[in-house]
Amino acid sequence: KHFSIAIIPGDGIGPEVVNEGLKVLKVLEEVHSDVRFVYDFYDWNCEYYLKHGRMMPTNGLNLLEDYDTILFGAVGAPTVPDHVSVWELILPIRRHFQQYVNLRPVKLLKGLESPLRYKSHDDLDFVVIRENTEGEYSNIGGRLHEGTPYETAIQNNVFTRYGSERILKYAYSVAESRPKKRLTVATKSNAINHTMPFWDEIVKEIGNEHPQIDVQLYHIDALAAYFISKPESFDVVAGSNLFGDILTDLGAAIVGGLGLAPSGNINPERKYPSMFEPIHGSAPDIAGKGIANPIAQIWSISLMMDHLRLPELGKLVLSAIEEVLFDGTVRTPDLGGTANTMEMGDAIVSKIREM
Amino acid sequence: KHFSIAIIPGDGIGPEVVNEGLKVLKVLEEVHSDVRFVYDFYDWNCEYYLKHGRMMPTNGLNLLEDYDTILFGAVGAPTVPDHVSVWELILPIRRHFQQYVNLRPVKLLKGLESPLRYKSHDDLDFVVIRENTEGEYSNIGGRLHEGTPYETAIQNNVFTRYGSERILKYAYSVAESRPKKRLTVATKSNAINHTMPFWDEIVKEIGNEHPQIDVQLYHIDALAAYFISKPESFDVVAGSNLFGDILTDLGAAIVGGLGLAPSGNINPERKYPSMFEPIHGSAPDIAGKGIANPIAQIWSISLMMDHLRLPELGKLVLSAIEEVLFDGTVRTPDLGGTANTMEMGDAIVSKIREM
Ligand SMILES: CC(C)[C@H](C(=O)O)[C@@H](O)C(=O)O
Ligand SMILES: CC(C)[C@H](C(=O)O)[C@@H](O)C(=O)O
Repeated sequence: KHFSIAIIPGDGIGPEVVNEGLKVLKVLEEVHSDVRFVYDFYDWNCEYYLKHGRMMPTNGLNLLEDYDTILFGAVGAPTVPDHVSVWELILPIRRHFQQYVNLRPVKLLKGLESPLRYKSHDDLDFVVIRENTEGEYSNIGGRLHEGTPYETAIQNNVFTRYGSERILKYAYSVAESRPKKRLTVATKSNAINHTMPFWDEIVKEIGNEHPQIDVQLYHIDALAAYFISKPESFDVVAGSNLFGDILTDLGAAIVGGLGLAPSGNINPERKYPSMFEPIHGSAPDIAGKGIANPIAQIWSISLMMDHLRLPELGKLVLSAIEEVLFDGTVRTPDLGGTANTMEMGDAIVSKIREM
Repeated sequence: KHFSIAIIPGDGIGPEVVNEGLKVLKVLEEVHSDVRFVYDFYDWNCEYYLKHGRMMPTNGLNLLEDYDTILFGAVGAPTVPDHVSVWELILPIRRHFQQYVNLRPVKLLKGLESPLRYKSHDDLDFVVIRENTEGEYSNIGGRLHEGTPYETAIQNNVFTRYGSERILKYAYSVAESRPKKRLTVATKSNAINHTMPFWDEIVKEIGNEHPQIDVQLYHIDALAAYFISKPESFDVVAGSNLFGDILTDLGAAIVGGLGLAPSGNINPERKYPSMFEPIHGSAPDIAGKGIANPIAQIWSISLMMDHLRLPELGKLVLSAIEEVLFDGTVRTPDLGGTANTMEMGDAIVSKIREM
């Protein structure tokens, strides 16, 4: 079987960690002789922007359309305002391809210690389902009375029934597929009194079709605190675009840091390609030093394999990451070690070959 | 000196913890014979709403106007939708009285352990300055196509130059008053691309007037993660209404929980009364059991004393709380003990008397 992958390394540490991802794709072909990955590279990033005045060509989205999947590094550089680079590259891809599910596991891997004193591996194993196409990231808004003391900026949160239903149905269905049958949903309907009560209503409506699911709505402030005090109570956590964003960085922090955390931007209908990327950004402060942790990128490839219906390969990649971390000899600086990005990637590749 | 205080116990555990606060006010009069607190009670809560169809009388805000300060418990009960109780009581008070600063210390008290494995008392001592009158809590929005598949809810984030400047100026001035001279500001200008870039601009503009301050803008997702990984790097943290809300519950979690965390809703110009309240809510699940931790409420009284320009009393109250926690014999269940609300309050009162 052939799978086509569009590779977008992006900025900063993006290309460095994507390189390690490519090594993993190659070794997967070795161990699974039926599978071939065919890929093309797209150099769309802030450098491209400085040359062409845009983050991707006008037909960029068309170019991506026919791939089976997309592997993304990270976007953003000090030379281009963040909202430009993000709104012209990563967010249009998520939206155009209806990647409305952002799937982000929060799992403490073997060999790692949580920064939370009393929490162990059993306590830290859940998944966050984040809405990925609307909500607080609306792009709708503007300014009035610019340059005067009365200047005002307004931005809309836009929650549609269409968008909220599809992500919440997905979240319930993931909860159904797991033994605990528990769904925790982020809200802030006490203070954000138009969009969030609407969201809560839809949570309850869809809940009526899932009487077996134990569903709980928590305000985002309290929920963030519960990530610290009772992460063991979570199984599936669902949130809007912004709330899911915040919760998943927090989730990464409680299981060892942003260097590890992967994500899948998924179009569940498989009408369009899904995209896999680390949660972390382009980290300009450590770019070029070769010390970035490639695990988030490599774990994203594990999620990609699951999505491509190659679950044995997904499992293999994740197990290899865990084994290497458990050995403990090869670790990047963010995990307290001295290995560089390539050494970390090579160790995982060797482990896959051995397994 | 006489100080007039409006007392609003509110719902759930609100009245229980406010009672302990009143004991503390009384003992402060004993130890400081020049000071007298005169107070009136207002029974505005969800019960009041069920009787009168509103959370407070139409002239409620006028009634509060002439007090020196307001002591608030907590609002919210299962019988009234949260957005009603909140938008008719606590939020109108914050807005009408221009309490645009929500001041929330994040400090690990002596005798307590942080849930963060490697963080000690020196690592956990900063203050969050939250915008408290506008932003994401706009109350502006509505719904379209109700009851159809095309239903859409919209809510505006409204950031004014007026509102953003005054809170950020305040934050810079607090940073100026502290030895570290460091200000960390929450943003999300990469994705929320109208209001947040405006906020960032104002951060930088005011920064130009404070060249001594080391200012850092972090996206809220990364900042939430840094609360776990490097809380020791913070001195003053500023955020919008929503971001400050999330960060302060998270802040409470890393220093021992919501039972401890106090807040001041402050009108710095002292044109209107300021209001002091715990960060926690009305906690219907434990209401009536007498087991709520009154420390957040009592610490709020410490902040109230600071605001009333009685810093020796503010310090006394906080020291007494710390001493009792350090003794360790009297602790409420949230801190692993078996003391009830009154015993915890009494222990602090006795300590104040001894000191
Ligand atoms: C009750 C609620 C509206 C409130 C807020 O979000 O401001 C609370 O969470 C707080 O932090 O004081
Ligand atoms: C780069 C940024 C817009 C993005 C987001 O907020 O979605 C990132 O933080 C993420 O979580 O993937």
